[in-house]
Amino acid sequence: MEGLHILAEFKRCQGAPALLKEAGALEKLCLQACRDAGLTVVGWLFHPFGTVAAPAGTTGAVILAESHLAIHTWPEQAAVTLDIYVCNFSRDNRQAAEAAYARLLQAFQPEQASRRDIRRGSLESDAFANTTLR
Amino acid sequence: MEGLHILAEFKRCQGAPALLKEAGALEKLCLQACRDAGLTVVGWLFHPFGTVAAPAGTTGAVILAESHLAIHTWPEQAAVTLDIYVCNFSRDNRQAAEAAYARLLQAFQPEQASRRDIRRGSLESDAFANTTLR
Repeated sequence: MEGLHILAEFKRCQGAPALLKEAGALEKLCLQACRDAGLTVVGWLFHPFGTVAAPAGTTGAVILAESHLAIHTWPEQAAVTLDIYVCNFSRDNRQAAEAAYARLLQAFQPEQASRRDIRRGSLESDAFANTTLR
Repeated sequence: MEGLHILAEFKRCQGAPALLKEAGALEKLCLQACRDAGLTVVGWLFHPFGTVAAPAGTTGAVILAESHLAIHTWPEQAAVTLDIYVCNFSRDNRQAAEAAYARLLQAFQPEQASRRDIRRGSLESDAFANTTLR
């Protein structure tokens, strides 16, 4: 369960508008980004909000053998929130996560991006406030 | 896109072993936890790893109108990693996220749990290191 979780926000995206508005375009990009990065896709689900005439964004999840990718688009703000979590169970997947992240960053072309990396799966990590329950 | 993202790790879970080993049991719990918390489920996908004889955990994603829940179980370690992300677009969903989290915590009964709350969607937030790309 030890791994890397990238949380990112993209704002004022200048990439293809379809990526923000069309679930199919977003799904294609995300699956390709994962596969090209060497991650193992085992399932996915992309749900469009709004209507074709008035798209209100998409939420997508890609289930990976290495953990998951989750993405939300906000066309009215040209914004995206992105999670890429890879565990390092059988090998170190950090480079694969970086490659998928870079691909999505390149596709969305945000004017502003922020990113935070969280090391997961270690209760001893200083990234987490520990709580011993019993 | 502004919202709350709870990242949690549960270790040495003492709850029903089926929750760690059976995708169906985990799916039922997660959907119920979201619905009982007042969150709007619009889709879900739970993928089992391993075999029935030797289950190797489940990865699940629940797509919410409010954002998403993602969960990974690690039966060999009796451990779970959990993400609950709710945005506050039309209303403040933090209490709903808390309710769903509490339900899962109660079901898994971890001996040790850690949790980190991330405020998302605000590039000005001190929770993120900002990068201006152009």
